[in-house]
Amino acid sequence: MKKIINSPEQVVEEMLQGAVLAHPGYLRRVEGFQVLVRANTPVEGKVALVSGGGSGHEPSHGGYVGKGMLDGAVAGAVFTSPTPDQVYEAIKVVDGGQGVLLVIKNYTGDIMNFEMAAELAEADGIKVDRVVVNDDVAVENSTWTTGRRGIAGTVFIHKIAGAKAETGAELAEVKRVAEKVVTNVRSMGMAISPCTVPAAGKPSFTLDETEVEIGMGIHGEPGTHRESLRPADETVEHLLNKITADLPFGSGDEVAVMVNGLGATPLMELYIANRKVAEMLAEKNITVAKTYVGNFMTSLEMAGFSITLLKLDEELKQLLLAPADTPALVQV
Amino acid sequence: MKKIINSPEQVVEEMLQGAVLAHPGYLRRVEGFQVLVRANTPVEGKVALVSGGGSGHEPSHGGYVGKGMLDGAVAGAVFTSPTPDQVYEAIKVVDGGQGVLLVIKNYTGDIMNFEMAAELAEADGIKVDRVVVNDDVAVENSTWTTGRRGIAGTVFIHKIAGAKAETGAELAEVKRVAEKVVTNVRSMGMAISPCTVPAAGKPSFTLDETEVEIGMGIHGEPGTHRESLRPADETVEHLLNKITADLPFGSGDEVAVMVNGLGATPLMELYIANRKVAEMLAEKNITVAKTYVGNFMTSLEMAGFSITLLKLDEELKQLLLAPADTPALVQV
Repeated sequence: MKKIINSPEQVVEEMLQGAVLAHPGYLRRVEGFQVLVRANTPVEGKVALVSGGGSGHEPSHGGYVGKGMLDGAVAGAVFTSPTPDQVYEAIKVVDGGQGVLLVIKNYTGDIMNFEMAAELAEADGIKVDRVVVNDDVAVENSTWTTGRRGIAGTVFIHKIAGAKAETGAELAEVKRVAEKVVTNVRSMGMAISPCTVPAAGKPSFTLDETEVEIGMGIHGEPGTHRESLRPADETVEHLLNKITADLPFGSGDEVAVMVNGLGATPLMELYIANRKVAEMLAEKNITVAKTYVGNFMTSLEMAGFSITLLKLDEELKQLLLAPADTPALVQV
Repeated sequence: MKKIINSPEQVVEEMLQGAVLAHPGYLRRVEGFQVLVRANTPVEGKVALVSGGGSGHEPSHGGYVGKGMLDGAVAGAVFTSPTPDQVYEAIKVVDGGQGVLLVIKNYTGDIMNFEMAAELAEADGIKVDRVVVNDDVAVENSTWTTGRRGIAGTVFIHKIAGAKAETGAELAEVKRVAEKVVTNVRSMGMAISPCTVPAAGKPSFTLDETEVEIGMGIHGEPGTHRESLRPADETVEHLLNKITADLPFGSGDEVAVMVNGLGATPLMELYIANRKVAEMLAEKNITVAKTYVGNFMTSLEMAGFSITLLKLDEELKQLLLAPADTPALVQV
């Protein structure tokens, strides 16, 4: 295992320290916890957003802590749900009196632990609500999931619910918008090479020299099938057809697009993929309001990418295009 | 060779198309050329900045085309200098009457071709000047370089000279500031795994299971030596000591830091590296005004990272922190 680390046991702790040292104007560490919050937390009079999950998906979720997106992010061990006490602490620290919305990716461990944390916080009199993101159209149920998995579409929930919270909207309103995003967002990915969890020391799956995995999860959970690597355009066609058929997306719709790298994929390849995405959407008479290309929800050094489409209405579009200022995503 | 591409011959063309389709508000393609310019080019009354070089270093340089940074970027074939006619076209398209500054990384081919383009443009009556970036302290002379190589520090020239040009400063003033950055910026990198140029089909160098290359260039040119992978902190110490000794950087200095991923390095590892960078700088009583952590100057899917330090004075600091709005770097 070749990694730029000091020891497998210290990767999350040292990453969090390095992130706060890099972005002191944005981030503050909650002492004794694997929790990053806004430097100016709590923001009084604003609903707070907390997300998180296993580490290894950077910049998710700590990179999205900042104005217009999250108030706090909880980092579990690599690919492992954070424990309830960690999430509970995050809720307490970010609550500015207007309540806290939890944005949870749909994994059994995350659901259970965030839920338990919510109960603890509610017992303290903090208003807490939650949304569960399940944007991955590849498979129903999987290694750690009942129902569909939450993947890169989660970033759109952070962005849009975060923008809504910035307007001073109440918890129920922020939740309504977040759920509207969940209802309208779909993703699917593929991998050409796996990643290695530091504590495991070896790849979570293996692929032969020409083989790729279609529809795998962001922890390397099995996808729909394996096949030989095809030209980028054919792969995009396969993924995007699954996505557009699912909601469905069709003529006259307006969407946001995310072409997300899984960690080791050159930006060159992501742009090549986006070329085909844009071409296919134009053919279907689907308008693109905004495109994001880059590493937004990664799987350590996995190589591959995912495509996310979010169907927009006027409300979602306005919130998507609203300003944000975080370490990983800045919009003006 | 596993890559998300359609054909090795089409990677640059399709990448440029995909980038313009992703960022139509920022970028416009100069038809018939591998040149990206601002959507609103030319900006009248402003000195224009043009950079470029071989492709494969994305988001360099097309990702930095936008307000506060570049006006145009010229993309050669992968790891190959763009030809003079391409650079010449970029100069003509972006010139708003105040002249054009070329930002050239110090590679023999780039110098020659940008120089030739400058002469053609000057013959047309366009004012053209240039700066050459040579921030890599690893080695003097290398595969394609006389003198030191230009690497990730180039992004600081784009940022700072770009901000200066935005103020309406004259060409000589923009050049003065750009050269001040060149004088004060130093970088060095290391790789744990190589990359494959699509047209070559195999890695440009090989490393065994525990071996890393210290001080290699962004095209895989040889560095200072190979060694066994050490803990991240020791590697950072080695690189940063070479950098701080070179200018030198010392007690009381204020700097900007860039911890740059080469393409396949998880953000987690870059933050772990930054933790040690920040700790060492604090020990040396060097103040950090701003830290950038991410993929800024890549080498396709090479794994590894580089560290860049820029010594700041009040002028450079103000320009560094000025707003920018480009596909790859947004600051508010």
